[in-house]
Amino acid sequence: MSRFFSKKYSALVPYTPGEQPKDVKYIKLNTNESPYPPSKGVLEAVTKEAGWLQLYSDPECSLLHKELSTLYNVEKNQVLATNGSDEILNFAFMAFSDKENPIVFPDITYGFYPVFAEINNIPYEKIPLKEDFSIDVNDYIGINKNIVIANPNAPTGMYLELCDIERIVKSNPDNVVIIDEAYIDFGGESAIPLTKKYDNLIVTRTFSKSYSMAGARLGFGVANESLIADMNTIKYSTNPYNVNRMSQMAGAFAIRENDYYMSNCAEIIKTREYTKNALEKLGFYVLPSKANFVFAKCDKLSGEELYLELKSRGILVRHFTSERIKDFNRVTIGTMEQMETLIKEIKNILEEKR
Amino acid sequence: MSRFFSKKYSALVPYTPGEQPKDVKYIKLNTNESPYPPSKGVLEAVTKEAGWLQLYSDPECSLLHKELSTLYNVEKNQVLATNGSDEILNFAFMAFSDKENPIVFPDITYGFYPVFAEINNIPYEKIPLKEDFSIDVNDYIGINKNIVIANPNAPTGMYLELCDIERIVKSNPDNVVIIDEAYIDFGGESAIPLTKKYDNLIVTRTFSKSYSMAGARLGFGVANESLIADMNTIKYSTNPYNVNRMSQMAGAFAIRENDYYMSNCAEIIKTREYTKNALEKLGFYVLPSKANFVFAKCDKLSGEELYLELKSRGILVRHFTSERIKDFNRVTIGTMEQMETLIKEIKNILEEKR
Repeated sequence: MSRFFSKKYSALVPYTPGEQPKDVKYIKLNTNESPYPPSKGVLEAVTKEAGWLQLYSDPECSLLHKELSTLYNVEKNQVLATNGSDEILNFAFMAFSDKENPIVFPDITYGFYPVFAEINNIPYEKIPLKEDFSIDVNDYIGINKNIVIANPNAPTGMYLELCDIERIVKSNPDNVVIIDEAYIDFGGESAIPLTKKYDNLIVTRTFSKSYSMAGARLGFGVANESLIADMNTIKYSTNPYNVNRMSQMAGAFAIRENDYYMSNCAEIIKTREYTKNALEKLGFYVLPSKANFVFAKCDKLSGEELYLELKSRGILVRHFTSERIKDFNRVTIGTMEQMETLIKEIKNILEEKR
Repeated sequence: MSRFFSKKYSALVPYTPGEQPKDVKYIKLNTNESPYPPSKGVLEAVTKEAGWLQLYSDPECSLLHKELSTLYNVEKNQVLATNGSDEILNFAFMAFSDKENPIVFPDITYGFYPVFAEINNIPYEKIPLKEDFSIDVNDYIGINKNIVIANPNAPTGMYLELCDIERIVKSNPDNVVIIDEAYIDFGGESAIPLTKKYDNLIVTRTFSKSYSMAGARLGFGVANESLIADMNTIKYSTNPYNVNRMSQMAGAFAIRENDYYMSNCAEIIKTREYTKNALEKLGFYVLPSKANFVFAKCDKLSGEELYLELKSRGILVRHFTSERIKDFNRVTIGTMEQMETLIKEIKNILEEKR
């Protein structure tokens, strides 16, 4: 820390992204990327757009917003594209929470929420998940605080039914509820239609997982137009040209080839169920997942041991050190072939441990 | 504004970007873009990178940081790439200024500085430029406040010699001085070498102008490694994957083809001098510019009139409404052909006004 660093941030503990190794060729099952490449139309659009890089990107993201509003059947002014969904989440934290308006979220969830709260000087409270790692909806009914819930949750993969989301939104009419749907395309039902009914709901999404575009950094929010306008005020006060030309076009053309991406999601769901069954046969406890990953533990070796054993065999999974989940590993669903290799290696590891 | 918007931001006036028209084909001389396309290596790198969009971008921007550190002869940990230079500027405002550490800048300069200050709740003071729109260096000597200076300044284009920059940095050893060098490649001398000598200097740069990459959103900062570490803390607490894959590669490959871009800059300098002379012959007062634009006014019609007349003839320039500069227009230097058209149209306008 330099002697110039603002005291505001002196206790800040930044988010730690998953490993992005550059040395060895791993089977990378640690950051919930899609195993499938972007579609042909996306590649062509990016290549074409690169020829116009000398011109600024459209600060209004007009084409992308149009495609998004058509796909999700909302108005154009109900959508805001950002540099990854981390940016729309930060905008939402900034715009609607402050010292007088604290925010709550589950104790086990996306590790960035407390960081967004800390950096924006927002008081926050963690509500413990139930023993089985599910969210107790009653904990959020009428609590009169801002709320952020990842649905499906990460790193558990567990899903809350839409009717439960609606109960939470409806019962806190004077607070903003953020539903982070990074993983919704893998089997859940989106809350986006509810943004027309409730003026206090923000749904955040990303192209990183179901649209094979983690490297493009493209996310967006859907909400009532007034909430979007407020987040636009934040955007135009920090980074008006926040989404580059190539990613805007990549997103727009991905939506036009939606079938390709949705069929990839169906494949990932199938592979997830194979993986869950195979792990259970090996004695693992696997949480029910509606995401592109499973969260699993095994009595025979610790979460960290399994993580390290797999890494030494060229397979990366994500291990978290916090107390309640340190026995688990989060395993991204790759191709069927990759998951068969994973299962084979886990078998080998378990046999060696006998 | 929604009823949920934080009172912190209720008085916030966002930055207004230059017009990005989608309807008519204008000669676009209003947002200081390069008239030259990106180089071949950049196009190839982007196309190749698009095939790997399903994987996250490198949060450490390793290749790009390596190329930048080689080009500018600094250490790798002295460099930080961002999503446009607006992002590195915002990081620098956030990290080093706060209620107890105000920031000062010229009254006429990049319009985003007061917005960065407002959104981060930082007290700021505007120091008037001299009558001739130059910066009075003595205003900044030993003032014991954080400072941001665009060099060359915008929208004036006027340049401060490196020895003057050094005097300012040296005389405020307990404060951070940010030198925003968005336009330095058009004839100025960079302060980057001084970052090795002074631990309180941040130089910010962009690929938007001299590297024909406004649409890629790529900027960076160079500073003492402790200052960079602090700005990394901000980055990893807001948006760790802030630079997408394609822009990282575009930047790295642009540096490898540096000669192409520097020869474009030389061309722009030549065209700027032609434009300045031609405008002066038409009776304009043109400030001396070391940027890729000129700032000019004419007795015969107001700044707004000229802006509107040119727009109606298909040429966009930038007009600002603030009192001290409302008689001027900022005109980006395009190709020689574009500037000849501009001069021809201005002649026509002046003749019609007789």
